[in-house]
Amino acid sequence: MSDKKKIYKPRPVSGFPEWLPEVRRVEQQWFDHIRRIFESYGFCNIETPSVEELDVICAKGGDEGDDVDKEVYVIERLHKDENDKEARLALHFDQTVPLARYTAQHFNELVFPFKRYQMQRVWRGERPQAGRFREFYQCDIDVIAQDDLPLHFDAEMPAIIWEILSTLPGMENEKIQIQISNRKILIGLLHALEITNIVETTRIIDKMDKLPIEQVRHLLQEQIGLDEKQCDTVLKLAQIKTTDTSFVEKIVTLGVEHAMINEGVQELAFVMAQLAHIPEGGVVADLSIVRGLDYYTGTVYETRFVEDPTYGSICSGGRYDDLASNYINKKLPGVGISIGFSRLFDRIKQKQQLPVAGVSPAQVLVVLPAEDKRAEVQTIAKTLRDRGYNVEVFHTPSKLKRQMAYAERKGIPFVWFPPFDEGGNHEVKNMLSGEQVAANASDWTINV
Amino acid sequence: MSDKKKIYKPRPVSGFPEWLPEVRRVEQQWFDHIRRIFESYGFCNIETPSVEELDVICAKGGDEGDDVDKEVYVIERLHKDENDKEARLALHFDQTVPLARYTAQHFNELVFPFKRYQMQRVWRGERPQAGRFREFYQCDIDVIAQDDLPLHFDAEMPAIIWEILSTLPGMENEKIQIQISNRKILIGLLHALEITNIVETTRIIDKMDKLPIEQVRHLLQEQIGLDEKQCDTVLKLAQIKTTDTSFVEKIVTLGVEHAMINEGVQELAFVMAQLAHIPEGGVVADLSIVRGLDYYTGTVYETRFVEDPTYGSICSGGRYDDLASNYINKKLPGVGISIGFSRLFDRIKQKQQLPVAGVSPAQVLVVLPAEDKRAEVQTIAKTLRDRGYNVEVFHTPSKLKRQMAYAERKGIPFVWFPPFDEGGNHEVKNMLSGEQVAANASDWTINV
Repeated sequence: MSDKKKIYKPRPVSGFPEWLPEVRRVEQQWFDHIRRIFESYGFCNIETPSVEELDVICAKGGDEGDDVDKEVYVIERLHKDENDKEARLALHFDQTVPLARYTAQHFNELVFPFKRYQMQRVWRGERPQAGRFREFYQCDIDVIAQDDLPLHFDAEMPAIIWEILSTLPGMENEKIQIQISNRKILIGLLHALEITNIVETTRIIDKMDKLPIEQVRHLLQEQIGLDEKQCDTVLKLAQIKTTDTSFVEKIVTLGVEHAMINEGVQELAFVMAQLAHIPEGGVVADLSIVRGLDYYTGTVYETRFVEDPTYGSICSGGRYDDLASNYINKKLPGVGISIGFSRLFDRIKQKQQLPVAGVSPAQVLVVLPAEDKRAEVQTIAKTLRDRGYNVEVFHTPSKLKRQMAYAERKGIPFVWFPPFDEGGNHEVKNMLSGEQVAANASDWTINV
Repeated sequence: MSDKKKIYKPRPVSGFPEWLPEVRRVEQQWFDHIRRIFESYGFCNIETPSVEELDVICAKGGDEGDDVDKEVYVIERLHKDENDKEARLALHFDQTVPLARYTAQHFNELVFPFKRYQMQRVWRGERPQAGRFREFYQCDIDVIAQDDLPLHFDAEMPAIIWEILSTLPGMENEKIQIQISNRKILIGLLHALEITNIVETTRIIDKMDKLPIEQVRHLLQEQIGLDEKQCDTVLKLAQIKTTDTSFVEKIVTLGVEHAMINEGVQELAFVMAQLAHIPEGGVVADLSIVRGLDYYTGTVYETRFVEDPTYGSICSGGRYDDLASNYINKKLPGVGISIGFSRLFDRIKQKQQLPVAGVSPAQVLVVLPAEDKRAEVQTIAKTLRDRGYNVEVFHTPSKLKRQMAYAERKGIPFVWFPPFDEGGNHEVKNMLSGEQVAANASDWTINV
């Protein structure tokens, strides 16, 4: 190498995570697991391009509202032509905007209700700060219907999420809780109390998990101008939290009546009844959940670690009346939920709770004792591969000790020894137990 | 919807493909298939961020050389701060530059030989034109060693690629050929003939598949100034093409001697001998293959459709001496190969050779005959899901005809009828054959 050569010392790019192979293997297990469960409920997969036209991205309607505009990354060719007349492109910051555009664009080719899952990277150009990702994975499911969307799907979302989160490898000791509400109840109550500043009021209620109750009361009085009785009623509602449908009774005792409240209560009761199979405490009707946005019109979901509620929601979503009205003149109601995959994975990784995986996916390393054994060794490997095993052949004849050390460092659990002498046995060593037994490539099975 | 609302009519972004769900399902099958085979040879997976620092991207050494700089996409926050001092970031245009940076950055944590596969999107900001992608998938495998890399891996690459390409669903009728050479042979020959303009000469030879032989001769004479005898010898070498190791004999008859030729011939003979299990014509020693770049130092690969060689290589790569010398002061030789996934998939799709897949991954649709059967129907679905099936429950009680039409449009092959009356049978209808039989959720199996 020339000494004059410039060395660009590589360093991590803040907010753009990458993993070592042994961590990536567990990340793959997580994706496989989530995909398997999404598909077991009949959700089909789509992928959309990493970019959308900037106009499409900035047309409102996404899950995150106005604030996200500031975080949009635009892309540009390094040496673009002077007379470049193409639309500006930007990386998507969520999967809801691309889904809306996709559904509108392919409307005539899709079968409704359109049940899709999507597991892609999204990008948010936040200022770099510890623990915040600028590139991360989300795993979304949504169901989009024409005109009317059955309530069945509002109940299916948390059932799927529960099944996933309670069985992800590494989550065994994490107690999580899915919190469900229905925005119609709070909004109906505000209407009944003749409180007109709906958006501001819901945004204050949305802070219930972060602020002491007295501070929330203070904000409602100061910023919205609620009187004491209004405050009491709103806060009483927002404090209702039941693991079954008994929230219905508690709402009745508030003594406030409005058609919208009834509608919301019935919907939430249906959803909770459908989730009765989830173990006690796994799902809760929590009337403080509103999501910050007008976007949601009925059922809303958040999900928290029971032992660390301040970590914020790891899986959120809800029902919306109108997915794609920015792009098509049709009424397309939907309901969806999004797992903040990278945030969740990173937390379990930080807590050192991820299962330990070997560097290599190989289950067997076949030893190469000498160059003239190469063909024989390749045949053993092929036989095992054809039977579904992942098999590596050691690449060069060298000391047995070196070959076994390689298996150890790569986390390959079995080492295969071809016969060293004419008429000798094949043997397989279990690297964990040390046990070594005679074996035949055409019928050997892993037996840990 | 308000009439004043602006509708952003969605349209495809040129060069950024996306598929309908039924096509995406086949694309997933392809990825699963490729991943399974990569892993069966013990390659571990990594993913790198979508971006690298622009300096890292522009430090030479990638597979595609200088020209790609022009096609780099930089990313930028839409509303960046005035005093933003961060390094400029760019989307990667291949997976070799990120691999080099990754290997250097994590050098102390990796086990060598480092066998990794990577299946990610890459981006090239070409001017939009029909059939050219600006965002596409590549599936790469590389093996990186410290100091010395056994030749074993040069032979493993095409063996893996053959196994993949000859078994991908939809490729059954496509005859492909992997073309292998070793650059040392041509370079040695040029040295022996005292031809000094090596880079230019190899670039002309690289055009052998596109230009008539007389035109190549003309270029060698005019641009490099070769005399007739030099031309003859170079062209004779470049026309050697054998499906076994008989190329060795043909090179000997050229009567040119050089240590580098011998080395290259021995290496190529080893690789070809290891590939003897591949059916006749599947792999060929083709001395016209040089790849355009100095980057490669030994074995080189290209892959073509036998019936359409002008389509260009769908899978290319080779051996390089020095992966990461731009980023670390170590000698890291490697060998790798890259499947142009999106280009290949798109071609098979265009030819309508992809297998037909249903829109939905569901195998069974459970009919919901009436609202009061909902719990029972959910139990059937759960039993089937627990047994590994993908099952959708119809979302709302409605006419049987409508529920079956839904299964048909979504391509769900089986419809499950719970008993409509007390004590009645469960029945399953095979939507393809029309056959309907009694069944039990706890032991029914798909039997097409």
